Amino acid sequence: IEDSPHEECGIVAVASASQPVSSLAFFGLYALQHRGQEAAGIAVSNGKTLHVHKDEGLVSQVFSPATLDPMVGDLAIGHTRYSTTGAPGARNAQPFVIETLHGPIGVAHNGNLVNAPALRQELLTNGAGLSSSSDTEVMALQLAGADGDSWEERLANAMKQWEGAYSLVVLTADRILAARDPWGFRPLSIGRLSDGHVIASETGALMTVGCTHLREVEPGEIVTLTTALARTRGVLEPHSPGARCTFEHIYFSRPDAVWDGLSVHQVRQRLGAALAEEHPADVDVVIPVPDSSTPAAIGYAAALGVPYNEGFVKNRYIGRTFIEPTDALRKMGVSMKFNTLRDNIDGKRVAVIDDSIVRGNTSGPLLRLIRQAGAKEVHLRITCPPITNPCYMGVDMGTHDELIAHHLSVEEIREHIGADTLGFLSLETMMAALGRTDGYCNACFTGEYPIAIDGIRSKQDFEGALG
Amino acid sequence: IEDSPHEECGIVAVASASQPVSSLAFFGLYALQHRGQEAAGIAVSNGKTLHVHKDEGLVSQVFSPATLDPMVGDLAIGHTRYSTTGAPGARNAQPFVIETLHGPIGVAHNGNLVNAPALRQELLTNGAGLSSSSDTEVMALQLAGADGDSWEERLANAMKQWEGAYSLVVLTADRILAARDPWGFRPLSIGRLSDGHVIASETGALMTVGCTHLREVEPGEIVTLTTALARTRGVLEPHSPGARCTFEHIYFSRPDAVWDGLSVHQVRQRLGAALAEEHPADVDVVIPVPDSSTPAAIGYAAALGVPYNEGFVKNRYIGRTFIEPTDALRKMGVSMKFNTLRDNIDGKRVAVIDDSIVRGNTSGPLLRLIRQAGAKEVHLRITCPPITNPCYMGVDMGTHDELIAHHLSVEEIREHIGADTLGFLSLETMMAALGRTDGYCNACFTGEYPIAIDGIRSKQDFEGALG
Amino acid sequence: IEDSPHEECGIVAVASASQPVSSLAFFGLYALQHRGQEAAGIAVSNGKTLHVHKDEGLVSQVFSPATLDPMVGDLAIGHTRYSTTGAPGARNAQPFVIETLHGPIGVAHNGNLVNAPALRQELLTNGAGLSSSSDTEVMALQLAGADGDSWEERLANAMKQWEGAYSLVVLTADRILAARDPWGFRPLSIGRLSDGHVIASETGALMTVGCTHLREVEPGEIVTLTTALARTRGVLEPHSPGARCTFEHIYFSRPDAVWDGLSVHQVRQRLGAALAEEHPADVDVVIPVPDSSTPAAIGYAAALGVPYNEGFVKNRYIGRTFIEPTDALRKMGVSMKFNTLRDNIDGKRVAVIDDSIVRGNTSGPLLRLIRQAGAKEVHLRITCPPITNPCYMGVDMGTHDELIAHHLSVEEIREHIGADTLGFLSLETMMAALGRTDGYCNACFTGEYPIAIDGIRSKQDFEGALG
Amino acid sequence: IEDSPHEECGIVAVASASQPVSSLAFFGLYALQHRGQEAAGIAVSNGKTLHVHKDEGLVSQVFSPATLDPMVGDLAIGHTRYSTTGAPGARNAQPFVIETLHGPIGVAHNGNLVNAPALRQELLTNGAGLSSSSDTEVMALQLAGADGDSWEERLANAMKQWEGAYSLVVLTADRILAARDPWGFRPLSIGRLSDGHVIASETGALMTVGCTHLREVEPGEIVTLTTALARTRGVLEPHSPGARCTFEHIYFSRPDAVWDGLSVHQVRQRLGAALAEEHPADVDVVIPVPDSSTPAAIGYAAALGVPYNEGFVKNRYIGRTFIEPTDALRKMGVSMKFNTLRDNIDGKRVAVIDDSIVRGNTSGPLLRLIRQAGAKEVHLRITCPPITNPCYMGVDMGTHDELIAHHLSVEEIREHIGADTLGFLSLETMMAALGRTDGYCNACFTGEYPIAIDGIRSKQDFEGALG
Repeated sequence: IEDSPHEECGIVAVASASQPVSSLAFFGLYALQHRGQEAAGIAVSNGKTLHVHKDEGLVSQVFSPATLDPMVGDLAIGHTRYSTTGAPGARNAQPFVIETLHGPIGVAHNGNLVNAPALRQELLTNGAGLSSSSDTEVMALQLAGADGDSWEERLANAMKQWEGAYSLVVLTADRILAARDPWGFRPLSIGRLSDGHVIASETGALMTVGCTHLREVEPGEIVTLTTALARTRGVLEPHSPGARCTFEHIYFSRPDAVWDGLSVHQVRQRLGAALAEEHPADVDVVIPVPDSSTPAAIGYAAALGVPYNEGFVKNRYIGRTFIEPTDALRKMGVSMKFNTLRDNIDGKRVAVIDDSIVRGNTSGPLLRLIRQAGAKEVHLRITCPPITNPCYMGVDMGTHDELIAHHLSVEEIREHIGADTLGFLSLETMMAALGRTDGYCNACFTGEYPIAIDGIRSKQDFEGALG
Repeated sequence: IEDSPHEECGIVAVASASQPVSSLAFFGLYALQHRGQEAAGIAVSNGKTLHVHKDEGLVSQVFSPATLDPMVGDLAIGHTRYSTTGAPGARNAQPFVIETLHGPIGVAHNGNLVNAPALRQELLTNGAGLSSSSDTEVMALQLAGADGDSWEERLANAMKQWEGAYSLVVLTADRILAARDPWGFRPLSIGRLSDGHVIASETGALMTVGCTHLREVEPGEIVTLTTALARTRGVLEPHSPGARCTFEHIYFSRPDAVWDGLSVHQVRQRLGAALAEEHPADVDVVIPVPDSSTPAAIGYAAALGVPYNEGFVKNRYIGRTFIEPTDALRKMGVSMKFNTLRDNIDGKRVAVIDDSIVRGNTSGPLLRLIRQAGAKEVHLRITCPPITNPCYMGVDMGTHDELIAHHLSVEEIREHIGADTLGFLSLETMMAALGRTDGYCNACFTGEYPIAIDGIRSKQDFEGALG
Repeated sequence: IEDSPHEECGIVAVASASQPVSSLAFFGLYALQHRGQEAAGIAVSNGKTLHVHKDEGLVSQVFSPATLDPMVGDLAIGHTRYSTTGAPGARNAQPFVIETLHGPIGVAHNGNLVNAPALRQELLTNGAGLSSSSDTEVMALQLAGADGDSWEERLANAMKQWEGAYSLVVLTADRILAARDPWGFRPLSIGRLSDGHVIASETGALMTVGCTHLREVEPGEIVTLTTALARTRGVLEPHSPGARCTFEHIYFSRPDAVWDGLSVHQVRQRLGAALAEEHPADVDVVIPVPDSSTPAAIGYAAALGVPYNEGFVKNRYIGRTFIEPTDALRKMGVSMKFNTLRDNIDGKRVAVIDDSIVRGNTSGPLLRLIRQAGAKEVHLRITCPPITNPCYMGVDMGTHDELIAHHLSVEEIREHIGADTLGFLSLETMMAALGRTDGYCNACFTGEYPIAIDGIRSKQDFEGALG
Repeated sequence: IEDSPHEECGIVAVASASQPVSSLAFFGLYALQHRGQEAAGIAVSNGKTLHVHKDEGLVSQVFSPATLDPMVGDLAIGHTRYSTTGAPGARNAQPFVIETLHGPIGVAHNGNLVNAPALRQELLTNGAGLSSSSDTEVMALQLAGADGDSWEERLANAMKQWEGAYSLVVLTADRILAARDPWGFRPLSIGRLSDGHVIASETGALMTVGCTHLREVEPGEIVTLTTALARTRGVLEPHSPGARCTFEHIYFSRPDAVWDGLSVHQVRQRLGAALAEEHPADVDVVIPVPDSSTPAAIGYAAALGVPYNEGFVKNRYIGRTFIEPTDALRKMGVSMKFNTLRDNIDGKRVAVIDDSIVRGNTSGPLLRLIRQAGAKEVHLRITCPPITNPCYMGVDMGTHDELIAHHLSVEEIREHIGADTLGFLSLETMMAALGRTDGYCNACFTGEYPIAIDGIRSKQDFEGALG
């Protein structure tokens, strides 16, 4: 639903001696489309030069055979991007490609450097010019100027200066480097092809391109891919405990992702089951807000022994459109996204399962639809705690001001959205459902950030510097 | 899934004195996108002249504020179209708009006239020229030349010559006419706005634009809409029994549709339950082929008392792309549409529920994915009988040659696709699940066509006459 | 310049057994681009079916290798179109292609039928439906319904009903027909290829595609082309005297055209020389309004023994832009089309030669530019008489109201535009310069139309019927 | 004609407190379109941030009201670009905009730095990353890192390192800087608006936007524009003598340009007259190769006392098309660009005036057309000496290998192209016609480069580094 945190990127890298790497990168991005719908790009190395194609739009809109087929080579990286409103997408689209003293490089990044403003200022002070507002350019320029006799060394040296969340892939003329920050905020996994390797933000993308034998790029690790080898080296000591983003399990990742050894679909079922224990409801039917809450609703219903069913129908053919109902039409009941299934709701006590409440502007209308369909009671259950703090690690949650739970208590939220009862999963129960006691970042729920954020502005604050 | 029959159109009509009719037609078409993704169009009357905008593409691609906003008036009709391969979509896009002796008219049609070739020949013999291969143009030209003092009379006279399936809306300068053939093959329903009416192929579209108090346009009936009134007259004696398309329940309609007084989502759950009785399976989990089979799988699982769960993940961001995996990549496991959820399948006996098998080319790969995910047994259950005959009533099922059940027995199909067991719902049980004994067209299962089709070629046969 | 009458079409037809006819049609249209810049189209026959591609835009924008290469066959026709403001170009674009009882036909037309409204009404009364406002559709539908055992006979019968100006080409599955009205208003010529023939509005287009041995399609004649033959038959008695459009010599045709046995460039030089005799000017330099007036200025200067030179520089890269100077900018001197060459003008007495004055809104600004460049005197000379009447024969001159010479005397016009002296060529001298005493239509100068136009509205009046 | 040297850019800058600067920049670029047709861009400052829009295509294609109107501010710069084949235009399109320590800057440049490779290497060695292959980025990055307390000082310091040809404009948040190299290779002029100033590559563009009181930006000078003032300072000692590009007079500049105090149209007439003296021809008519040679042909004809006339007709509606005649069609006489005017040529002895011969591949076909039109004799006269050396100062003349005069003598060229006689203007006579003895770069004729080019590769050699 619209009231969701926004992941800021999906990345992919392909090394293959015999397969068309640009096509594989495309299929990988296609499977990562949910991580960013604003812009997409692919860069390919033919061993000497890099060719890049990137533009605003969905992966399927940005690429066609005419743009993809000429990108011939053995190595490719790709990126799909969510951008905050106002920042011109095309200029900030990735991969970011530059010529350096040591040859051309391309960088695709998922995350957010909390010290990007300082690093940016340092670059400018040294006389650099920056053509975008993205921290990816900052990282690329630091790589260009880093000490070291190899790209691996230069990347290792650059990483020492980076604080924050980063999962990134770097394309050079003859290799691909992949790296992940020592906290392991954002996911990044590696899979094997018959004649090479693929790296992607989620294992689902690896599955889509036919990979087997998967593992994660470890926190603090650099993995080097050529068509012949996949070499790995620990570069930064992994932070202990780590700080994986819990929201990857709750909402971001596709349900076919496996992360931290956990199946996301299974985790979501367990979150539902745990919610049933913590916040049971005496209802006739359990329905999800499609599509992300479906596994949790299945788990909730099974744990309660109450029938699971669908209650909302979501338009499957949502393309980008600038045509929206006016407020007048909205009041008349015009609604582009969801219809209800009256026969599954009418006369029933209904539990509605949703993954999160961020700004709180969509739960109310959804519950209203349920009541209009004849529900006798409506009980809303959320598979995570109230979100009270912004994220500085690569997710657009909005600012303090925008977060409803920063202002209102659970009871006030319940009244605001018109639920009969409202239950958020507690932090402890949530972590128990994951089967983990630590190793995760829950700062959006707790305000306890794994990295000091004194004086740090969120990513959104310094976007748009060049207009 | 790809191996599906294709509905050949969705239609909508709007009469409203105070709302923006072009926007309402757009939102209606948006909700009917699943009925045709090749082309879309809207025509609006300002009381004197008609303005039309139509093009190839999704509804969201064909229309923008720039094309929609200038279409000002009180009356609108719209159309979304599926076209058979090779026929140039833009020329055949609807609404079809012409000037006639009695002023301009626009026609949007869902269905297929089985006597269109004869009517076409008759028009040509009378000296007419035809600019497209569509039967909609034939209908429009017959309307232009029909006897009668009003559009209602002319439409009534034209309908006497039409044999086959037609649900259509006609826009004139000062009114909208809607009509449905006497068998009632294809759906068409009418809803009330605060200051007008909307007609659409499915009730879900009526719900999307905020309508209440719905009923069907009856078989053989003409409904006249102006902003002031909605008048109806019986024109052709409804055929008894009728011949509603069973496939609307099984696959075409969105689950939020209500047709023949039946909720489609409920019908699908009952089809699943009936299937459980007719073809039970000793399994650990029941999974649907998303998205159309989800309610049937819920019903099947509930009836058996076996857990329902998701086993496939479908890419939600499918835009049109001309980039497809090559055969070589496909063999390597590259697959753009579905991934599996191993943890829900591994080591389990699995029942997979699908709505139908048409050409039979996708069930095999899907079952293979399930086995690769570790299923111990795979049992495929289909919510309708084997399809052995083409449709001449507006659905592209393919030709006899293409239909797998025309060539192979159930056992041969089972072996071909690699299922441990395979069960099709019988005709009797399917109708019992609907709660109907007659009134439906099941010709694709039985070969017993409600209308004589001697010497009739299928719609596809005469497309492309103009190249 | 902007203040020009607008020709309403260029047409081309190609029959060739071994050359790519779609490419030749493209090159022919490319050379006829000056006859219409709003839309372009080509239809090709492969012996059985017709394929058409047409759209709004310049010939070079409408066609690409991707659209042109698939159009394979031995016969092609093409069209480039100027459309009056407001009429939606794409729907009225030509060739107009329809299926008829006798197979598919495509029609491309240059001219205007003065009895089109009556013929249109007759078609509607007979029950036809019309999908555009163009008289070309009327002609195509009349062809579809005409009596006769062959397309030649049907065309001959249809021509008997047509009054007005028409040069047209008709493409059928196995032949091309070309015809011209008995007055011969608009040009149409035929040339020979090594293995076929080409027909085009102007001989320059024939030259562009490498033709030799040119002659005109005669007034009242039908020419039939296949790849094997070019057969001709007189069908309607040529009207005597004929009524060729004088404006083809004065302005429309490219200077490389040869028509009525006359080189257009030579005619324009002679018009200039005649103007020097009828309206000499005591000047230091003679300059043309580029580009159409250049030959007349050369002739004027030579006859007077005064130097010819350029005084205006015209932007050569004029693409279509919707960005125009505002009135405020225009007053500040912003001018997109012409700059002056001060050194050729400053301190001089200047004769400016222009082809015509229609609405009279551009002569003033042009003369002002000349004065700002330092001219001591400015004498404007026009190579035709004042235009006092609209054209109903296929040219958009504007209405009576819009024609400046319908309202103002020569002296008033002179004062209005700010010339020191102003001279229009007289009708007699103009015809003498052509070397003809009759055979031309000069209705726009005299109001004496060759065809009765009682009750006839101009083409513009009934455009836009369908909005 | 195709066989022409290519200018590599046109630039414009606008400072105005009350006029729409983005529109004025657009109109200025529109008038500079002949200096580059591959890409165009405009950057505007609103006093704080810069907004840029740039893309491949003609100025009229790159900009629309939708892209132009939102660019609001008091200061603008613009650029239109010719790019050598293969280099991806969009990435190299200008203005080049970056964020620096001192705020954002945009740079638009016409010329070529001969030491760009060394400067580029220096930047890379200092750890910079470069995102394009253009020397404009090198200049921008040097500006970003230059010493100085103001942009004027930083630009002055950067200029000390630049060797070669550069006319450039720099946009900062609050001012525009314009500068020209000390040799003055490329033109750059300044004009006054009622409330500001405009700077452009040619005075014709200044005239187009309504400027008065023009002068050049002097060699070695920096001009600072704000809406309130235009301040100038000499920064580098002008080289004496200077090295203006003679080809601006011969071919590049529009005839309405005034440069070095000379009217280009007048200069071309004098070049024609001088050619008549140096290489007279006993002919019946003098014709230009349109459009650039028209003034020279007028001058040549007047000096000989022989009639000037047009002999070629050039297609005025040349849009970019990828459809070209095949060799087979070319042999059949298909020719898209020029037709001949037989009546002006047939039976005559003809002098053809052209501006230059570079690769020598178009003169032959043109002369053949003249002979086919019946010329008894064909005498080709060229308004400059043979081009024997490449340009390293911002013009794409081709390499040594590609220059016909590098390989063949005048007599051999004459024979190669099939002229009866061939005359090139001598260097001395050319300079005499200009009225200058020195101050011009004639290296393409003499090989004497004003700047040492040891080890310098031409601009083309290092393009495409990033593919």
